[in-house]
Amino acid sequence: METRPGTPRIDDEVANELRAALGSANVCTSADDLDRYSRCTIPWQSLCAAVVFPASAEDVAAVVRIAARHRIPVWPSSTGRNWGYGTTLAIDDGAIVMILERMNRILEVNEELAYAVIEPGVTYTQLNAHLRSKGHKLWIDCTDGSGQGSVIGNALERGIGETPYGDHFGNLCGLEVILADGERVQLGSTTQGLKTWHTHKWGVGPYVEGLFTQSNLGIVTQAGIWLMPQPESHNSFVFEVSDERHLPKVVDAFRRLALTAIVNTKLHMINDFVSMAILTQRISEQVAQHGPLTDADLAALRRKYCIVPWSCAGGIYGTRGQVKLQRSLLREALSPYGRLIFISDALLPYLQRLIDWSWKSPLVRRLIELGARTSLPMLDSAPYVHKILQGIPTEYFVKHAYYRYRRPRPQEGVQPARDRCGLIWFAPILPFSNTHIWPFLDACKLRFAAHGFDFYVAMLLMNPRSIICLMAIIYDREDADETAHSVQLYEELLAIMRERQFQQYRAGLQSWGELFKDAPEMQRLNAKIKAALDPDNILAPGRYGVDL
Amino acid sequence: METRPGTPRIDDEVANELRAALGSANVCTSADDLDRYSRCTIPWQSLCAAVVFPASAEDVAAVVRIAARHRIPVWPSSTGRNWGYGTTLAIDDGAIVMILERMNRILEVNEELAYAVIEPGVTYTQLNAHLRSKGHKLWIDCTDGSGQGSVIGNALERGIGETPYGDHFGNLCGLEVILADGERVQLGSTTQGLKTWHTHKWGVGPYVEGLFTQSNLGIVTQAGIWLMPQPESHNSFVFEVSDERHLPKVVDAFRRLALTAIVNTKLHMINDFVSMAILTQRISEQVAQHGPLTDADLAALRRKYCIVPWSCAGGIYGTRGQVKLQRSLLREALSPYGRLIFISDALLPYLQRLIDWSWKSPLVRRLIELGARTSLPMLDSAPYVHKILQGIPTEYFVKHAYYRYRRPRPQEGVQPARDRCGLIWFAPILPFSNTHIWPFLDACKLRFAAHGFDFYVAMLLMNPRSIICLMAIIYDREDADETAHSVQLYEELLAIMRERQFQQYRAGLQSWGELFKDAPEMQRLNAKIKAALDPDNILAPGRYGVDL
Repeated sequence: METRPGTPRIDDEVANELRAALGSANVCTSADDLDRYSRCTIPWQSLCAAVVFPASAEDVAAVVRIAARHRIPVWPSSTGRNWGYGTTLAIDDGAIVMILERMNRILEVNEELAYAVIEPGVTYTQLNAHLRSKGHKLWIDCTDGSGQGSVIGNALERGIGETPYGDHFGNLCGLEVILADGERVQLGSTTQGLKTWHTHKWGVGPYVEGLFTQSNLGIVTQAGIWLMPQPESHNSFVFEVSDERHLPKVVDAFRRLALTAIVNTKLHMINDFVSMAILTQRISEQVAQHGPLTDADLAALRRKYCIVPWSCAGGIYGTRGQVKLQRSLLREALSPYGRLIFISDALLPYLQRLIDWSWKSPLVRRLIELGARTSLPMLDSAPYVHKILQGIPTEYFVKHAYYRYRRPRPQEGVQPARDRCGLIWFAPILPFSNTHIWPFLDACKLRFAAHGFDFYVAMLLMNPRSIICLMAIIYDREDADETAHSVQLYEELLAIMRERQFQQYRAGLQSWGELFKDAPEMQRLNAKIKAALDPDNILAPGRYGVDL
Repeated sequence: METRPGTPRIDDEVANELRAALGSANVCTSADDLDRYSRCTIPWQSLCAAVVFPASAEDVAAVVRIAARHRIPVWPSSTGRNWGYGTTLAIDDGAIVMILERMNRILEVNEELAYAVIEPGVTYTQLNAHLRSKGHKLWIDCTDGSGQGSVIGNALERGIGETPYGDHFGNLCGLEVILADGERVQLGSTTQGLKTWHTHKWGVGPYVEGLFTQSNLGIVTQAGIWLMPQPESHNSFVFEVSDERHLPKVVDAFRRLALTAIVNTKLHMINDFVSMAILTQRISEQVAQHGPLTDADLAALRRKYCIVPWSCAGGIYGTRGQVKLQRSLLREALSPYGRLIFISDALLPYLQRLIDWSWKSPLVRRLIELGARTSLPMLDSAPYVHKILQGIPTEYFVKHAYYRYRRPRPQEGVQPARDRCGLIWFAPILPFSNTHIWPFLDACKLRFAAHGFDFYVAMLLMNPRSIICLMAIIYDREDADETAHSVQLYEELLAIMRERQFQQYRAGLQSWGELFKDAPEMQRLNAKIKAALDPDNILAPGRYGVDL
C-alpha cells in the first residue's frame, strides 16, 4: 500500500473535447474539484485529472471514445458513496473520474411484475420516495449506508442490504452497458424491446451480466431492479445475546432458520463495539482518547448504553398469519439463548412517542429504560432498524465512521469522505458455520488490539450458507501513526484470511493489486476477457484486479 | 434448417493420439457408435467422427489439446440426455463428441451447509440414491425428464426443475472448468481450497461462471450444487381448472402467490394435451391416426381420462404449521377457480394402495373413480408428481415423447433419441402476465393446428416474474411430410416469438444459427469473448450462437 502524491493535469485538447461533448459545466478540472473527488476514507491517495458528469449513455460513450483516443483511463462511479472501499478514487493519478449522478431517471416502474428500470444516478432515497409518492405498493431494499448511495452502483459492487431482496446483484436484471469502444449493448437480449429483459435474469446464451460487476469491463447505463411487493404484515426483530457462550448455538439456530427460509433477510449480527460506534463518539465519552477502549472503558460503555455482547436484527414479512407463525418459530428457536423483541408497524408510532417523550423528560426516560431494560439511545435506534427493513434509508448508521473523529459528527449530511474520516472496510465471507467463524474472529480480534484498534465486526448473512464478517478499521486520519497502523492491520487481516482459505465478498481498492496473486489462472482468465473487451485498458485499469 | 448427411472420418493419427490419452476402450470410431451418438429427436442430422469418454479433468484437457492441434471441433455433453434440444449432436459433421458419463464421482456432501460437489456424469438418479442411502437429510431437485440426465449438464443448460431449488443454474455454485487451451480454472476463487467456493455463488471480482452456461467457452469438470434440507413436512398439490374463463384469474392469483413466496416451486400449468401425451399413445386410442386430434376426439379423450383443460401442480414445504397455513392460503386464493387437491406424505401410501387395488379390480376402480372424480390413469400419476417434488426422479413423464410413435412405448429404459421418436422443444419465456401469455398461446395454437399437430403447452414458473411457455412438437419421424411440417412449424413459432419481442429461455440446436440475428451487439460481444478464450474455435463452435 502506498500513497502517491502528484499534480496530474489533463491536456487542453482533451479537456476541450470533453467540454464539447458534455458542456463546460460538466467537466471539472479545477484544483478544488479534483481534490473533492480524490478524497476517501481509506489511507490511499491519488489525484484525478478531470471529473466528468455525463447525462446519458451517449455522453458516456463520447467520453469513453475521447479517453481511448488519448489513452487516458476512465474511472466511473455511480454516485461516489463507496466509502471505506475507495469512494471515487482511481488507483493511479491522472485518471478521468466519471460520476453518473446526472443520469438519475427512473425509466419505468412495473407494479404488476414488481420491478423498476433506473439509471445509475438513482439513489435509494430517490427511488423510495418515488415509489411512495406515486402510491406504488412496492418496497426497495437499501443498505444501512447513505441514502445517497446508488441503487445500481451498490448492486454492481455486489453489496447487500437488509430484506429478502438484499442480494442486490441477485435482484438486478437486464443491464445496458457501454463497452470500451463506445458500443451500447443490452445484455442477454436477442431483440430490441425484449419483454422479459427485466423479468428473467439469465437471458439466453452465455450469461454475461456478471462480468460487469466488481470489474471494469463496461459502464452500466441502466438496469432493471426487482422490488418487493409490500407485504400485508411486517415485523422487525432484535435478538440480544448477553452470554457469549451461547453464540455457537445461535449460529446453528440461525443457519437452520435460514436454510428453511424462516429467516430470509440479510440478518445482521453485530458485536458491542458496532453499537457503540453508532451511538457515540470517542470524544464524547470519558474513555482513553488514544488506542482501543480498555476493558474497564468497554464495560462502562456497555453499562451506560445497555449494550449486550452481540445483537442481531432482521425482519419477517408475509400475511398476518405468516408473521404470527414466524414469530413463534423464531421464539422457539432463539429464546433459550437471549432476549427476542419484535416490533410491528402497529407498535412503531407508540414506541416513537415514548422515545420522543423520554428525550424530554428525565423521569419518563428512567421509567422507560427500566421497563424496557435498555438505554434510551439503544431504544432510539429501533425505529431506524424497523424502517430500514422496509427499504426506508437513513443516515443514522453511517455515523459510526466518525467514532474517532476529533470533532462532533454532523447530524445531517453525513459524508465521511468529505469530512476526512478514517474508515477501512474489510469484508471476508465465510461458510456460515461455527467451525470457521469463531477461530477466524478470534485471530482478527488479536490483530485489532495489537494495532491499537477497537474490534468492530458485523456478521451479515449473504445467503443461508455464507456469512460476511464485515470489519471496520475506524482510525484518526489526522494521526499519522494510527494511519500507518491501520494499513498494517489491514494487511495482516488479509494475510489471516488467505491463510485460512477465505476471500473477500467485496474488496477495497488497496487490496486489488494482489487479489488474484494466489490464483494465476483466474488472473489470466480475467485478463483475457479484459483484453478482448478493452484492449487499450481504458476502463478503470486494475479495478478488482482485472488488468492486462 | 437442413440435414447434412456425410461420412466423416477421423485421421488415424488423431485417433491414435486420443487412444493413447484415454485408452482404446474410451475412443469410439465404429460406424455403429457414431450412429448411436448422432441420434436425436429433432429433425437435424450430423455425423460425428469420434466419440470419446474422458474419466478426469486431465483427460478432458488432453482431448482438448489434441483437438486444438488438429483443428477438430469438440462437442462435450454430460450424459447426453438433452432430448428435444439436440441431444449430443454437433451442428456440423466431423466433430469429436465428448461424453462425460465416466466422470461420475460424488466428491463431497456437506450436510451442515447443504450442498454436494459432483462431476458432470453424476445423474439425478445416482445423486438421489446416494443421499438417501447414506442417510443424508438433503433432497436434490430433479427435472421431470430422465433420471439419467446429468445434474450439472441440465444446470449448465439453465434448465429448471420442480422444487424451491428448481432454478438449476441459480443453485450451481463453484465451477471448475477446462478452457480451450487445456488450462484448468476454479472460477471465482482467489485461492486453492477456498472454503466458500461452494457456499457463495458470486465469488470475488467479475462473476464469470455464467459465461460457461448455454455456451461453448469451456468444459465444466466439477461443480457444487445446493441441496434442500429435508423439510419437516411436504405436500404436493394439484389444481384443476375446468372452466378456461377462469385462467386469467388463476394467473393473477399464482403471480401474487409467487411474488409473496407462498408458491416458491417451479409451478407447472399444463394443458389437456400434455396430460394425454403422458397417459397414452395415439396408436392406443380410437382417434384419427393422422393429423391432430379432432374436437370430437379431444372431447372423447378428455372424458375417458377425466382430463380438465388445465392442470397445475406444485409443492409446499416447511414445518407442519407452515404447511397447514400455506394450504389455507392456497385454498383461499385458488378455490374460486377450480378444484384444489393436496397430497401429504401420510396420505401417499394409502393412495398408492388404492391405485394398485383399482388396477386389479374393476369394481374398486369404478368406485374409486367415482369417489375421486377422476380416471384411474390420472390418479396413477399423482404419486409420481408427489415424489418428483421431493427430488425423486422418474421416467414416467418422458413417455410423452412416444405419443405419435408407431409402436408401443417402452415401460422401462425410456430413450426417445435411441428409439427415433420425433420431439422438438420450443421454450419461449414470457412475463408472468395475462397481457402477454394468452394472445401468444392463441397465436401459437393456430400454427400447431395449421401444420397438423396437437397443441402441447406446459407453463413452468421460472421465477415470480417470468413463465416458460414450453411447447413440444411431437411428430412421427417415419413420416417425411410430418417431419417437414415440424420444421416449418418450429420456424413459424420462432417468428411469432420474435415479432412479439420474446425470446427462448433455452434454445435447441436448430435455432442457434439465428439466435442473435436481431442483436448484432450481443453477437459481437459473445464473439469477442469466444475469440479471447477459444481463438481456434475448437469448443462446440456455434453452440447457442457463440461463434467467431
